[in-house]
Amino acid sequence: MRISDERLAEIDTRDLFEIADTLADAAALETLAHFRSAALDIANKQATAGTFDPVTQADRAAEAAMRAVLERARPRDGILGEELDRVEGASGLTWVLDPIDGTRAYMIGAPTWGTLIALCDDDGPLLGLIDQPFTGERWYGGPGRADIRRASGTEPLGTRRGTVMEDALLCSTFPEVGSDEERAAFQRVSQAARLTRYGMDCYAYGLVAAGCVDLVVEAGLQAYDVCAPIAVIEAAGGIVTDWEGGRADGGGRVLAAANPQIHQAALELLNAA
Amino acid sequence: MRISDERLAEIDTRDLFEIADTLADAAALETLAHFRSAALDIANKQATAGTFDPVTQADRAAEAAMRAVLERARPRDGILGEELDRVEGASGLTWVLDPIDGTRAYMIGAPTWGTLIALCDDDGPLLGLIDQPFTGERWYGGPGRADIRRASGTEPLGTRRGTVMEDALLCSTFPEVGSDEERAAFQRVSQAARLTRYGMDCYAYGLVAAGCVDLVVEAGLQAYDVCAPIAVIEAAGGIVTDWEGGRADGGGRVLAAANPQIHQAALELLNAA
Repeated sequence: MRISDERLAEIDTRDLFEIADTLADAAALETLAHFRSAALDIANKQATAGTFDPVTQADRAAEAAMRAVLERARPRDGILGEELDRVEGASGLTWVLDPIDGTRAYMIGAPTWGTLIALCDDDGPLLGLIDQPFTGERWYGGPGRADIRRASGTEPLGTRRGTVMEDALLCSTFPEVGSDEERAAFQRVSQAARLTRYGMDCYAYGLVAAGCVDLVVEAGLQAYDVCAPIAVIEAAGGIVTDWEGGRADGGGRVLAAANPQIHQAALELLNAA
Repeated sequence: MRISDERLAEIDTRDLFEIADTLADAAALETLAHFRSAALDIANKQATAGTFDPVTQADRAAEAAMRAVLERARPRDGILGEELDRVEGASGLTWVLDPIDGTRAYMIGAPTWGTLIALCDDDGPLLGLIDQPFTGERWYGGPGRADIRRASGTEPLGTRRGTVMEDALLCSTFPEVGSDEERAAFQRVSQAARLTRYGMDCYAYGLVAAGCVDLVVEAGLQAYDVCAPIAVIEAAGGIVTDWEGGRADGGGRVLAAANPQIHQAALELLNAA
């Protein structure tokens, strides 16, 4: 169901961002409780108990905490989360949740994982939030809002303008992106760009919105990996599509770009084979 | 010149850690002033002025600020820094400084770079400090001291114990480690480990000292890249050598390990060709 522009105008997005904040706060209590004890616990527990995985435990506890908030505050909305069963809603709106995007970063204690929260209708994300509770950074994007909250205050987000491919800064989570064909396409962009960095997870999308990074190229994503980044980056002036220039909110191959020019240049390289 | 144990016992390491703190504070003023504006500036300035590089500017300004502190507080000590000329000292002690370790992370706004400060004699690092001023984390290692200071307080550091290679968490900065031969050696360790993450720069060494990561394997390092990590990791119970098990404080190929067992297992894989 598509929310009409008239209805969207009636929705108080301030209330919805407040709920998103409450969700992120609830998730952070669970994720931070295990962060940097997780790696140690894994080793200890594997030696003694076999299969216990505190990362998965933190992931599930954080999603359960967010779902408990939504059941009280937004009982008519649907929920699509990484860890638990889909909840069909009656409102036409669905909360798309990834409690820990970047579980491998989380495992090693690196602060590049995040909690992703988006509110979507059938046409895609309406608003989104990326939270990195260890560094204390929270990115917001939606109607009339593109900003980042830190301990030092809230600052506006805005993507880079006017970079050409030879100056572009590119991020991807893994050097082993997707299939052989996908990896070759990624390499064409990487070789044309100024700099490629790996291991950033959802933090890379935040860096696009903050005007630090020009391109993120990923493959094999899920909807919950990308809906919040789409909302944040597009509110900040960027563009997020699949590798053919179509909708990316379903996941799969994703290209996030700081502006339409660098987006077009990257698309051409991805499809140059 | 080797500082004798008797003389070392006379040196007040609290004073030296205080100086290291002052150095890190001075560097942070310069590095944070440009962090996350750097990428944008590079693009703007390249378009208009050709060669201006704010990352290099921040790097040099931070090192100059640290040298100014040392000229006042420790005029008899030597200085080896990444950016400026070597200062020969008369005390037998040398401050080894890297104002921004991980300039590429710095360029893209990622919080995995750091300022590295070590105090060395001819036998290697006596004490070291790793500072990540954006996340507010400062690692210390030296005689009687292995801890990390954060906004929430100071906590002891300690490396992981008893992990076997198949559970090991491995970090390296680049998937393109060194020469073909070095890359093949790295891949042998990576394939045996549970998980490999890239892009962490000096932050990875901090994660070894904090008990989150088991192994860091790097090649092509300079002395100023590794002296502070050696001091921090060894104070926390780990071990840092070159790929043959010898001294690593001169740079080159570096293997940092959480404990002697995982160190030995990694050494064997690195030399298994």
